[in-house]
Amino acid sequence: MESTEDPENRLLLQPWTSVCFDESTKLMIKVWFGDAGYALLLSDLSSMWYEKVDTEVIQQRSKELNKRLTAHVSSFLSRLRSLICPLLEGEKSSSTIFSCQLSSSTLTLRVKSELSGLPFYWDFRCSAAPVKMVFHHLVQPLMAMSLVLQSQVQELASLLLRKDAEIEDYRESGATLSRGKEGGCCLHSAPLWDTSFLPSFLPSFLPHGWHRACSLWPLAILTWISHTAAPDY
Amino acid sequence: MESTEDPENRLLLQPWTSVCFDESTKLMIKVWFGDAGYALLLSDLSSMWYEKVDTEVIQQRSKELNKRLTAHVSSFLSRLRSLICPLLEGEKSSSTIFSCQLSSSTLTLRVKSELSGLPFYWDFRCSAAPVKMVFHHLVQPLMAMSLVLQSQVQELASLLLRKDAEIEDYRESGATLSRGKEGGCCLHSAPLWDTSFLPSFLPSFLPHGWHRACSLWPLAILTWISHTAAPDY
Repeated sequence: MESTEDPENRLLLQPWTSVCFDESTKLMIKVWFGDAGYALLLSDLSSMWYEKVDTEVIQQRSKELNKRLTAHVSSFLSRLRSLICPLLEGEKSSSTIFSCQLSSSTLTLRVKSELSGLPFYWDFRCSAAPVKMVFHHLVQPLMAMSLVLQSQVQELASLLLRKDAEIEDYRESGATLSRGKEGGCCLHSAPLWDTSFLPSFLPSFLPHGWHRACSLWPLAILTWISHTAAPDY
Repeated sequence: MESTEDPENRLLLQPWTSVCFDESTKLMIKVWFGDAGYALLLSDLSSMWYEKVDTEVIQQRSKELNKRLTAHVSSFLSRLRSLICPLLEGEKSSSTIFSCQLSSSTLTLRVKSELSGLPFYWDFRCSAAPVKMVFHHLVQPLMAMSLVLQSQVQELASLLLRKDAEIEDYRESGATLSRGKEGGCCLHSAPLWDTSFLPSFLPSFLPHGWHRACSLWPLAILTWISHTAAPDY
């Protein structure tokens, strides 16, 4: 059943992670390995690259790159999976070297390692992903997450208002904060609406250009997607 | 100075809004009008379409579509702006009809209205936007906003913990909530960590597929962009 399913759909179920190939090449990546192929998606936040391969491509490429190695497709896939997974988890291996060559239209991720005691080479040969994939794998999940985070902010703000009302009631009843207790004098907190927290808040760690980008994205439009068809997965 | 600046950069400074052309055609849209041209961007969350025109294109198209009308380019631009702005604000005009024809590679937004008492026709003829524009106009701003919202959630959660500590101190000092006051008995609130609010929360209005999309987007990766070059605007 797995082999008949579109690898792109399987890839949709994988999470994104970020990988640093060298000082100047940091990419977002997601990978899916099946019994008869793999799919790979990479992005540098300006472009996106994709490769989907089946058994035939794996056989051809393994002959081209590893003339001395004869192994079943499943062995190559298993080896590739065992090399890629530590990369995604940020682990470095002294016996495996990854290098990345990219342009706007192609990205080649070169792997140099070993298999059964012999040198093992692999090229992930990705080409520019279509716009539809950028929407499916980045825009739609980001909109969904922004919606969730927006709901969390609203829920937390509402909870804070209830806490403020409770504190106000204690104060009106003449209650005071303990001073003998360590840190007690620091417990007094300003009501939510006295702070300049809401409605806007831009964290200081956000790079300059992102402030502008963010202010141009009205939160209201996010609610639109709640009335939009869900992505097909 | 305005005319020498790239319309795409000017478009980056415009906010997105959503427009409903008919029951089955709801699109996100952003527009920029200058003295010598305009730029238009539309998306249905699967594709993106773009048109950038200068004075020459406006002159040609106005001759093609409005044979009886002779007017300066600035008059056409002014009229188009006065027709598009109410559309973006959700206002309907009985004297203006918009219709939208779209495929994955082209989108034509037809306008039928009047200018100086004569019929006035216009076609916004958009073609598929390149992947880079999807990143600049959607992915990067959405990532920036998700980062801001994530910071807001953390800041609000931290504020709630301080309120909980303050409330706990009042309670330990023997303070009780007023019961005589209207609604006073409802003021008691559970501490933040007693609720099942955090760490995960999925609003019920989110369509089914989005839950999956959202859970596949680790929040941690967002912090990555704080170390990434800011977009060039």
